[in-house]
Amino acid sequence: MPGTALPSTRTLALDLGLHRKTIVAAYETLVSGNWVDNLPRKGFIVSPNLPVLRPQSYHNGRIGAYDADPGFEYEQSDSFPYPLSLPAKDGIIIDDGFPDITLLPSQVMLKEYRHALDHSVLKKISAGWDIEGSSDCRHALCDFLNQTRGIDIKTDNLLITRGAQMAIYIAAALIIKPGDKVIVCEPSYIFANMVFEQLGAELIRVPVDGEGMNTESVEEILKTQRVRLIYIIPHHHHPTTVTMSVARRHHLLRLIRHYQLAVIEDDYDYDFQFQYEPYLPLASGDHEGNIIYIGSLTKVLGAPFRLGYMVAPEKFIHAAATRRMLINLRGDIFTEQVVSNLIRGGELTRLIQKANKVYRQRCHFLADLLDTELGDVLKLTRPNGGMALWLRFNPDLQLTKILEKAAGRGLRIMGSIYAKGNNATYNALRFGFASLNEAGLSKAVNILKTSIHKPK
Amino acid sequence: MPGTALPSTRTLALDLGLHRKTIVAAYETLVSGNWVDNLPRKGFIVSPNLPVLRPQSYHNGRIGAYDADPGFEYEQSDSFPYPLSLPAKDGIIIDDGFPDITLLPSQVMLKEYRHALDHSVLKKISAGWDIEGSSDCRHALCDFLNQTRGIDIKTDNLLITRGAQMAIYIAAALIIKPGDKVIVCEPSYIFANMVFEQLGAELIRVPVDGEGMNTESVEEILKTQRVRLIYIIPHHHHPTTVTMSVARRHHLLRLIRHYQLAVIEDDYDYDFQFQYEPYLPLASGDHEGNIIYIGSLTKVLGAPFRLGYMVAPEKFIHAAATRRMLINLRGDIFTEQVVSNLIRGGELTRLIQKANKVYRQRCHFLADLLDTELGDVLKLTRPNGGMALWLRFNPDLQLTKILEKAAGRGLRIMGSIYAKGNNATYNALRFGFASLNEAGLSKAVNILKTSIHKPK
Repeated sequence: MPGTALPSTRTLALDLGLHRKTIVAAYETLVSGNWVDNLPRKGFIVSPNLPVLRPQSYHNGRIGAYDADPGFEYEQSDSFPYPLSLPAKDGIIIDDGFPDITLLPSQVMLKEYRHALDHSVLKKISAGWDIEGSSDCRHALCDFLNQTRGIDIKTDNLLITRGAQMAIYIAAALIIKPGDKVIVCEPSYIFANMVFEQLGAELIRVPVDGEGMNTESVEEILKTQRVRLIYIIPHHHHPTTVTMSVARRHHLLRLIRHYQLAVIEDDYDYDFQFQYEPYLPLASGDHEGNIIYIGSLTKVLGAPFRLGYMVAPEKFIHAAATRRMLINLRGDIFTEQVVSNLIRGGELTRLIQKANKVYRQRCHFLADLLDTELGDVLKLTRPNGGMALWLRFNPDLQLTKILEKAAGRGLRIMGSIYAKGNNATYNALRFGFASLNEAGLSKAVNILKTSIHKPK
Repeated sequence: MPGTALPSTRTLALDLGLHRKTIVAAYETLVSGNWVDNLPRKGFIVSPNLPVLRPQSYHNGRIGAYDADPGFEYEQSDSFPYPLSLPAKDGIIIDDGFPDITLLPSQVMLKEYRHALDHSVLKKISAGWDIEGSSDCRHALCDFLNQTRGIDIKTDNLLITRGAQMAIYIAAALIIKPGDKVIVCEPSYIFANMVFEQLGAELIRVPVDGEGMNTESVEEILKTQRVRLIYIIPHHHHPTTVTMSVARRHHLLRLIRHYQLAVIEDDYDYDFQFQYEPYLPLASGDHEGNIIYIGSLTKVLGAPFRLGYMVAPEKFIHAAATRRMLINLRGDIFTEQVVSNLIRGGELTRLIQKANKVYRQRCHFLADLLDTELGDVLKLTRPNGGMALWLRFNPDLQLTKILEKAAGRGLRIMGSIYAKGNNATYNALRFGFASLNEAGLSKAVNILKTSIHKPK
């Protein structure tokens, strides 16, 4: 019984014929496990707070029935357009454009994690509550963005999010009302389209070509329709990797100012530039505060480290922070602590420089290899940065079947696939080149070639 | 100019009258910084990919204008009912009920972080994409919940979220349509109320007393109105810390089955039980799959480590996972990796046992102290677990003014405050006792007493 007094160590030692030290040791073990309490002057008692709980149950023999569908109504989910989860088997994975984890400075990162795990640091970061993200992280990121993006923002213009996706979701949720019209490219980033449609928007799709989004089409639409939001990826468009031309950028900026349009600029892989004179984000231009600029450090640090951000006028950031609170309450202050130190110490910049060098080589290596080995069945345009190639296969090739064969041979495509069964308009896919070394890329191309030319 | 050849080390050494090794070292520094490339047979050239970018600008002299309000329309945020962000000064912080960070097993956690930072582990966890949360973490958490909650769920019944707040948001978003009626207690957890209202729900408030939510009132409402959702916190109600009685639990379960009601059971601090026979969650009863059970490890691990979960029928979890993807794309697979190892190794259970012992003592210490020192101006009921006391001040006390005075004396209340200016119906606040030791609690009560009795 909880609370019952136990015999003294002396008594029990005599009773059992054991040395008293043995009994003391046994009691100490029970005390450390919370089974027994050692009270001053009272001695050992059975703990009133036993670590094994005897919970009070009130069900009728049927335990937590979760096998059934619930009896209430809810919004069911649509089936997802392409597979996300793969069996954890051996083989080569082609991703949508993700960094090479082995470039990460593990020792430096471990140092920062060790520092962040210090009780005093944990207490310090827990004490405050900045609904836009921790102050340290916003300051560090603000400096980093001002130095690299040609913008001149203050921390009040910055919200930290769990990856760029949360920033897209929150920005769109503040702007879109059911029935609103949203202009997107065709094709465009599928997870952004899904957000807009989930919020009740009607998508108006405009073509994207070698110069990026067709802004003439945008202007035609704006002349006759009330558009609530435009979603653009001008740097390396997703999925096609094309960079928007200067002329189109100027045109779009004029339209934004004239119509006071809300614009989400998704700049997911700006940090990966293979050329000497890259384009600055559209957000660095004259948009009168109408461009909500969104990015992520996940493309630098990898999928395990999701930290995104939103840049916008202060009042919009405040509204977004309040909405973020409803979704996420507090941010990931632990990761924010680590990341702000990685930025401050210059480690993030060094990683980006190192990665750019490696990825540029891999990009050209893969493009050369594909031109040589599969130039008869697919087309590609070399991007000026980023982490993926957009491969357009000849229309007579049955891409879905080829990829099934490739999967059987150990090559799994996790990147965006636009093929029959998924999206019949294209016969194309994104082939991430950053995460594999040259041997891996060669092997992947070889399997792909075999799967195309030996259809068995 | 990028690409320009540099003089050979020999030539430059002769020209400058320096040792060749000095020149080689200087060149190597330039190469490691990406300023110079060392090409086989060609020698050193200015890198074609200089680390300083010369970005192509296309703005008209006005750089990224983010000082202004945007020109487009968006949903502004309401002002928040109580202050969240405090100046980082010295002083004692009374939180809403948060763990004592110094109880965390830092060395064990560091070991797990070191393991997770290993390139091979990072590669492994990055390769898959489980939209409900990583498989390892769901398995570990599923076992932990089955062992502690009296439920019998499978991993398919489990979704990992970024804290309990995201689980509440997603569950509510799948269920509530604008105009729907939602039953909540009065008072209830403010961030849940805000979610329901943001989704367009009409809140129907029912009283909560010493036995928890008044289920008779609930039944009366159900007889005449179509209710979409009930939100309950039966274990330690927020903010009042009361536990729902067995009779009310049975009554509510009958209502849930009869009306096939959607219920969110928020069980935020179930792990903190000060008694021998605690109540199991309502979710362990016979609810025919209608209770969405939500919890968090943040109350165990602290604010820096946010990991929540949702338990529901498999089809609902699938819909919730798809919605989570739109908000968060991928989960926090890094933290999930660390946490699943902490669960598997028994570390989480040990921490909970240790914390329970400490928090129970602090709870009684604080309650005794408040009874003695401030029993004339406030009432409290000792909770049977949790991390906070609910202090009801005499109606004639001006709580807001007292707290201002206390703040001036170094005591800052970050917990929920229900006082004039915030919520006039109550004159009460939550006083978290878990994060402070007895010295800190004594000091806090002393400042509070001085602020009440010496109103200067």
